[in-house]
Amino acid sequence: MAENSPFLYEQIAGNIAGLIARGTYRTGERIPSVRQMSKQQDVSISTVLQAYLLLESRGLIEARPQSGYYVRAPEVDQLPEPGISSPGPDPSRVSLHELTMMVIRDTLNPNLVQLGAAMPNLELLPTDRLNRIVARLARNSGAEAHQYQLPPGLPELRVQIARRAVHAGGQLSPNDIVITSGGIEAIDLCLHAVCKPGDIVAIESPMYFGTLQSLEVHGLRALEIPTHQRDGISLEALQFAIEHNPIKAVLVISNFNNPLGSCIPDEKKKELVELLARHDIPLIENDVSGEIYFGDKRPSVAKAYDTKGLVMLCSSFSKDISPALRVGWTAPGRYRSEIEWLKFTSSAATATLPQMAIAEFLETGGYDHHLRHIRREYASNVARLSQAVMRYFPPETRVTRPAGGFVLWVQLPGAVDSLELYKKALENGITLTPGYLFSPTNQFSNFIRLNAAAWTYPIERALERLGGMVAEMAG
Amino acid sequence: MAENSPFLYEQIAGNIAGLIARGTYRTGERIPSVRQMSKQQDVSISTVLQAYLLLESRGLIEARPQSGYYVRAPEVDQLPEPGISSPGPDPSRVSLHELTMMVIRDTLNPNLVQLGAAMPNLELLPTDRLNRIVARLARNSGAEAHQYQLPPGLPELRVQIARRAVHAGGQLSPNDIVITSGGIEAIDLCLHAVCKPGDIVAIESPMYFGTLQSLEVHGLRALEIPTHQRDGISLEALQFAIEHNPIKAVLVISNFNNPLGSCIPDEKKKELVELLARHDIPLIENDVSGEIYFGDKRPSVAKAYDTKGLVMLCSSFSKDISPALRVGWTAPGRYRSEIEWLKFTSSAATATLPQMAIAEFLETGGYDHHLRHIRREYASNVARLSQAVMRYFPPETRVTRPAGGFVLWVQLPGAVDSLELYKKALENGITLTPGYLFSPTNQFSNFIRLNAAAWTYPIERALERLGGMVAEMAG
Repeated sequence: MAENSPFLYEQIAGNIAGLIARGTYRTGERIPSVRQMSKQQDVSISTVLQAYLLLESRGLIEARPQSGYYVRAPEVDQLPEPGISSPGPDPSRVSLHELTMMVIRDTLNPNLVQLGAAMPNLELLPTDRLNRIVARLARNSGAEAHQYQLPPGLPELRVQIARRAVHAGGQLSPNDIVITSGGIEAIDLCLHAVCKPGDIVAIESPMYFGTLQSLEVHGLRALEIPTHQRDGISLEALQFAIEHNPIKAVLVISNFNNPLGSCIPDEKKKELVELLARHDIPLIENDVSGEIYFGDKRPSVAKAYDTKGLVMLCSSFSKDISPALRVGWTAPGRYRSEIEWLKFTSSAATATLPQMAIAEFLETGGYDHHLRHIRREYASNVARLSQAVMRYFPPETRVTRPAGGFVLWVQLPGAVDSLELYKKALENGITLTPGYLFSPTNQFSNFIRLNAAAWTYPIERALERLGGMVAEMAG
Repeated sequence: MAENSPFLYEQIAGNIAGLIARGTYRTGERIPSVRQMSKQQDVSISTVLQAYLLLESRGLIEARPQSGYYVRAPEVDQLPEPGISSPGPDPSRVSLHELTMMVIRDTLNPNLVQLGAAMPNLELLPTDRLNRIVARLARNSGAEAHQYQLPPGLPELRVQIARRAVHAGGQLSPNDIVITSGGIEAIDLCLHAVCKPGDIVAIESPMYFGTLQSLEVHGLRALEIPTHQRDGISLEALQFAIEHNPIKAVLVISNFNNPLGSCIPDEKKKELVELLARHDIPLIENDVSGEIYFGDKRPSVAKAYDTKGLVMLCSSFSKDISPALRVGWTAPGRYRSEIEWLKFTSSAATATLPQMAIAEFLETGGYDHHLRHIRREYASNVARLSQAVMRYFPPETRVTRPAGGFVLWVQLPGAVDSLELYKKALENGITLTPGYLFSPTNQFSNFIRLNAAAWTYPIERALERLGGMVAEMAG
């Protein structure tokens, strides 16, 4: 790429925004000089200068004469985070079926700017490498790739997953793991294994709508627990709920709740596991985005603190390797044989070739390098999207500061109905996810979730138009 | 292959046995002369002679002086078919969970002779061609292969499936079809879509155990309907059952019931559909083996007679193309949007690359040729296995004469318990499926199902040992 390319400027600006988003440089702090940054990013001084000018023009940094560039605070203060959620105390049936499928169908429309579904950015996926692996496997594996891999699934893949789990504090053996067709199937099987129709499941609020749909399908009642936009589920509220309701399972997205981006601190995860162990309640832990952290180190999984086999850890490779290979897994503790049976009964097996491809990708060692790359990119894209919301949305708007993943949760001025906005946006060629979908009791009618996986010119323009619509609706 | 190879003799003998099994030559009829057969099979006269001698030594044909070779009857009469099933009149909860998983785990053991699971013969699958297709797709498709294909699934594949359905009398549009992760998922989603826990589902008896497991998982009650070993479900009994029970769905394997090998005649399929239409009851139709017919023409699907959108046709490519690509589908009539929602909720999507590979395989035209080949082979293997049962099992044994597919259903002498035999066989390195698994009310304790997909020397020896065990247990 030419040194004077505007794309390069954008890229470097994005990198720097990412460093700020990850907390490497904090509000009010001085960022490295143009010269230092030029060395650090290995680009010319004029490129860094252009990138700093871009960031300055967007209100993210400011030049102070004789001193250097500083991370700006004021605009961030104008867009505070949403507060902790405060759902009602009673469990409720879930029924968001039609609206969910409407939003899902939007994602099939290539003419829309896709801010709706939480799809990973395809350009950040290691597709070339995966395709080479698949081609090689197809050439060399003969009939092996066409042989059923009945539950628990391909042994080589389970070995690789057990090795990776060490990074998240999990002490898993390959025999603890059951391969599933993506993380959604893992969660669905776990819910099915420990609950029967009518049972109550305590969940974070807001909660990813796919999981709410799973509750609806199984006839379960959701008990929404207040959830902090940074630290996740409130243990005090959960304890109260457990003492007053016959809760059969608790479900959390421990690392980077979708849509909040919250991360339960490791010490709190331990407390959560201990609390549930005292009441003998299984914890279904969704960690699908756990590898996409913006901080310095991989947060643990709650499973790391599980001594009673009550934690059912679920994850997948859909967010960081390939959404369409549909490979996920669960380490369901004491419920393993039940999960194997349910997996066999509902879909017999997960496709073999995708399992072989993921196993090979994990084994041949590019995974860590790839993850470092996409963490940087996602942090940067989340920061840019957040800045764009800041720039184009009315000042009463609030937005989360995710610790990982690639979605933003935006609280609109009170008068704005997210379903109205969804419809208006659709007419204007933009899709987003209305807050209605994230609570069975309609806690979030003036919230929207934005997919921040990609940052492009059309996306910036779409946010500008969206901001105009919100301002108009806010009156 | 050398002209004087014993393998070649076996192969030709198998081909001829297949012709007899398919009814091309019937009991008592003269088969073509050695010279005619030599032309027809394009092998030398001495090869045909050797093949005829093999068949004669096995009691399948007999030489009549001055006349030629005839299809023998007597031994066939010694091994009659099992009678029509006669289950009790009441619906019952299903609970065969542990035994089923035990049998499933056997299939993961490469040291056993596999007569248990109904696995297709890997050597008959078009793995080389599929692997070439996969390799080419991986090289050329870029990120496309890693993009979600949310329900209803890959458009190109749905087009191909709709085209194929014409052969079975189905008038499907691509929009009628929802792609699933194998046929088992299709059936499971259909059951889930039309029934709630406690509901009664009428099924053929015996019924494939995976489907019984699906009933168990969803808390449904099975009402077993007497089923004829050739013509399938009894309509009289079904009508009676409908008039006396609040049946919420009927489930049949219309073409080549597993384990019976029965095929509901097309005219009877029409009556079945009309009967259910009068009572507004959905029919879940499993047609996974429909393409593996031994007769002259593809039997229809019941869906062909569906005018009210009540038939939910389910099929897959697991029996004839690849079990491990896990690609199936359903055409669920009026329940389509419900099925799309359930599919999204339980596993989001089916893997994309397998869908692309199957679509390409279907489109590039080798499918018909391939099917002709495997129909011949399966018919031959089923005939050989059947003859081996005839030869090695006690004379009171009865065995089905399947019209397609690749399983045999064997009724053992009354005193023989199939679970005892299963255990004894396992100790001797052989796995089979005990009849217990095919009925929730234990109708078939002295039956076993044998997978007849392959015919090898170890399989023949295993049947000999098995026959010895049965004889011993029969006392």
